[in-house]
Amino acid sequence: MSITVVGTVAFDAIETPFGKVDRCIGGSATYFSVAASFFSPVNLVSVIGDDFTEEDAAIFKGRNINLEGLQRIAGAKSFFWSGKYDFDLNVAKTLDTQLNVLAEFNPQLNERQRNTNALFLANAQPDLQLAVKEQSSARIVALDTMNYWIRSAKDALTRVFREVDLIIINEAEVRQYTEEPNLVKGARQILALGAKTLVIKRGEYGVLMVTRDAIFAAPAYPLENVFDPTGAGDTFAGGFLGYLASRSEANDREMRRAIIFGSVLASFTVEKFSLDRLREITIADINERYQDFRALTHFEDAG
Amino acid sequence: MSITVVGTVAFDAIETPFGKVDRCIGGSATYFSVAASFFSPVNLVSVIGDDFTEEDAAIFKGRNINLEGLQRIAGAKSFFWSGKYDFDLNVAKTLDTQLNVLAEFNPQLNERQRNTNALFLANAQPDLQLAVKEQSSARIVALDTMNYWIRSAKDALTRVFREVDLIIINEAEVRQYTEEPNLVKGARQILALGAKTLVIKRGEYGVLMVTRDAIFAAPAYPLENVFDPTGAGDTFAGGFLGYLASRSEANDREMRRAIIFGSVLASFTVEKFSLDRLREITIADINERYQDFRALTHFEDAG
Repeated sequence: MSITVVGTVAFDAIETPFGKVDRCIGGSATYFSVAASFFSPVNLVSVIGDDFTEEDAAIFKGRNINLEGLQRIAGAKSFFWSGKYDFDLNVAKTLDTQLNVLAEFNPQLNERQRNTNALFLANAQPDLQLAVKEQSSARIVALDTMNYWIRSAKDALTRVFREVDLIIINEAEVRQYTEEPNLVKGARQILALGAKTLVIKRGEYGVLMVTRDAIFAAPAYPLENVFDPTGAGDTFAGGFLGYLASRSEANDREMRRAIIFGSVLASFTVEKFSLDRLREITIADINERYQDFRALTHFEDAG
Repeated sequence: MSITVVGTVAFDAIETPFGKVDRCIGGSATYFSVAASFFSPVNLVSVIGDDFTEEDAAIFKGRNINLEGLQRIAGAKSFFWSGKYDFDLNVAKTLDTQLNVLAEFNPQLNERQRNTNALFLANAQPDLQLAVKEQSSARIVALDTMNYWIRSAKDALTRVFREVDLIIINEAEVRQYTEEPNLVKGARQILALGAKTLVIKRGEYGVLMVTRDAIFAAPAYPLENVFDPTGAGDTFAGGFLGYLASRSEANDREMRRAIIFGSVLASFTVEKFSLDRLREITIADINERYQDFRALTHFEDAG
């Protein structure tokens, strides 16, 4: 019940009101892989430069993450992102983006990477996402995207929306893509393109999952200490899809559990910079916070 | 198990992207009373001018609402509020406020109004809220406030915060009052003043209830048609306190149910202008939507 992720392994520079780091490990596929590997074996497909050291790669060690798809390009630098958050931690301001090795990234999946239970297409140019999707025979194909592609490559994005089972997207992006202010109506418009499930990320407000038959709302875990929201979305996707890929069925019951596991993982990520908190946690920590989510949301039938 | 509300009965002029009304019934005590009366007998304490007709007052008829505290001032006009919403329905832009009869409002509770299970102090100048509170022997005293008083009468607001059991407040107002960006930390600061429960309204994102021992998160009901958010907060408060006042205990289990009943009532209010939707619904509609909230939020223990 394995899972393949195609995305970035990168370096970040991050500034928040609580501190600053000039170089830390980041990248969508990094966060995704570490989170998903708590539940399912992961094939990581990405590209790095020779600035990504053995010490950096230690983040993947001792986990169920296959690195044969992590291509290293000699004499080149890894993808670099620099961003800043104000007290409103919901919005990142991008200060710098250096594509570096990513400029030539043209992923070719091998046999193992093609034949998985799930495929996650992390945020990327939609044509590239579609090209990867067409190589895969995964039972569940999910993607993430961003406002930049809605603005600059909407037709290509629509083509890939038609080909996936599950779209993970921000609330503002639903409104931007559909030009519909009502979120539920917007969600229905996107689902009409073909996907079975839309997972709408709402930052500190949690997640809304919309399918043809049901809506499920999950809050974010109310933390007293949020240090760095970088990677929360990809961590969520990793926990969500990692759990789902480990199950024999992707029914409503399992989808809801998957949303909570994704939310649990994301709640850990934001507690420290980079993947520092994800490095520390165990499956016992995850299960304990799952129970905390039960306590946070549970109410009884009317008496 | 009755409840007293002190607040406004008013006329509103409202413009939303979906329509416009020049004169409709509004006011915090109006929305509150109608919502609360589904669960508990309500004593309404407010003031109107002689422009408030018998036809207008029909909204209270056939409900468990005692109007002996609804003072009519001859030759004067009722409180008037005019507001406009853009597509972001979370934010009302006030176009006009005419205090009229409210300028001289100095509520004196009679025996019946003093001796209730619960008292709701709708948004008003904090000294007035405190003066009313001191007349009451209610077991549960709750208040609402607004950004205007945090800016202009913070000391008075702090005095009344110290004297109530339950504070109902917007998310932005928690941050404004405490100058603390983290919502949970801000909530704890306000609770340290004395109240046992803080109910934080987050508009389309629902409600967060914070007590010393627990946090409960409830989503808003994801509606495809939101016409007019006016009165949603007071309707929420009415459903919440009305249910709570009807129970023998205000324990965590009942508080959570109360939050959901408040959210249910508020979800109806926004479906039409003014109280037009609240007028139509029955307790069966309310119970049905309570079940919808169960379906919206329920997930099982990890398998």
